[in-house]
Amino acid sequence: MFTNKIRIVLIETSHPGNIGAVARAMKNMSLNKLYLVNPKIFPNVEATARSAGADDLLANAVVTNSLDDALKGCNVVIGTSARLRNIAIPLLDPKTAATKINNYLLNDKNEIAILFGRENNGLNNEELLRCNYHINIPTNTDFSSLNLAAAVQIIAYEIKMACDNKIIIDKKINDDFALASADEIELFYQHLEKVLTEIKFLNPKRSTKLMLKLRRLFNRAQLEKLEINILRGILTEIEKKI
Amino acid sequence: MFTNKIRIVLIETSHPGNIGAVARAMKNMSLNKLYLVNPKIFPNVEATARSAGADDLLANAVVTNSLDDALKGCNVVIGTSARLRNIAIPLLDPKTAATKINNYLLNDKNEIAILFGRENNGLNNEELLRCNYHINIPTNTDFSSLNLAAAVQIIAYEIKMACDNKIIIDKKINDDFALASADEIELFYQHLEKVLTEIKFLNPKRSTKLMLKLRRLFNRAQLEKLEINILRGILTEIEKKI
Repeated sequence: MFTNKIRIVLIETSHPGNIGAVARAMKNMSLNKLYLVNPKIFPNVEATARSAGADDLLANAVVTNSLDDALKGCNVVIGTSARLRNIAIPLLDPKTAATKINNYLLNDKNEIAILFGRENNGLNNEELLRCNYHINIPTNTDFSSLNLAAAVQIIAYEIKMACDNKIIIDKKINDDFALASADEIELFYQHLEKVLTEIKFLNPKRSTKLMLKLRRLFNRAQLEKLEINILRGILTEIEKKI
Repeated sequence: MFTNKIRIVLIETSHPGNIGAVARAMKNMSLNKLYLVNPKIFPNVEATARSAGADDLLANAVVTNSLDDALKGCNVVIGTSARLRNIAIPLLDPKTAATKINNYLLNDKNEIAILFGRENNGLNNEELLRCNYHINIPTNTDFSSLNLAAAVQIIAYEIKMACDNKIIIDKKINDDFALASADEIELFYQHLEKVLTEIKFLNPKRSTKLMLKLRRLFNRAQLEKLEINILRGILTEIEKKI
């Protein structure tokens, strides 16, 4: 069942009413894993009221202090952003993204996180760079800012439309290419940065741009577990040599 | 532009906050014609607050005392209903409905109304029978009741997705088959009921089932203007004869 493999991650939500409305929107579309990174006010009566019976999702919501904690165990990270930025990460409409999500779920080792940013500012660049791809909801260019729960509603609806009809294929084929988890990927980036610093290619106090560019590259590639092992093996070998 | 040819009709909405949230959802997706049939509380500060800048739609909203008034000039009427009823009117998912709407809009004489019912009870049978077809949003069967603005958001989103890419075809072809407006169709039904009563086929005090069945039949057919003229011509002739 697709419901257990997708988590909705809300980052620094200001209004508890929005958290409740998101829980309702999720439950309407058979999603049930809600993660809250540093919510301003939670739990709260307004959240419960607006959930309109989806209070079980609120009771089971995982509240974390960092995005890293919210992404533990996930190997596919998708960002939603109303604002088009200069970061050229693959941009999909909700329908196309839902089809991709359905494909990932054919391998039951995959876990997917969908990130929703702050009501006023969306996701910041660091958060956007954690993502394998971005979803952009087509809107009126003169009035593009969707309510948080409305954005979750549209994406959850497309996921339901795509996954309710999903075709089961041979899972063994996919297991050989199991994707790395978000924490495995982060450990790789840390290792990479350490080695790049050690070899003086990178001065982390001067600029972070290089690491951002590398993240973009590897995230587009959707690293697999075996590939991480290889890359980290290389880094370890480099360290031994210097 | 599709935006002027589609009106969103909310029937007896209880919570003004929902009206505001609907206005925002509409404007996000480039819709701007809002009709309110007997809203409980409107205008209202909560509606304005939840509209989040779509207050122009609220200021221009048309408030009516009857569904008839809200449908004046429309020739395609679409109902939304979470509850599946015994009335067998064609039922479409939002994506399919949006494609149909896009096709109707290829003829710029067509005007479309999409009806949304009360927060607790949806549309009643009489209202459902005014519709040429129904949209059913796929939901979790154990938790199917969507927030009003969430339902509008999904359908408005699908309309935007369908209509932003619409292909312009020869309009002349369609003009010959111009659809009748909702008021023309209602006048026909009144005329029909009158004649059926006059000829004692129908006793309106005993049962309304017959008229409901006839509505279903004609609504499925999507009556054209010329057809209404023919049908009413027949009715007038019958009246003359009796």
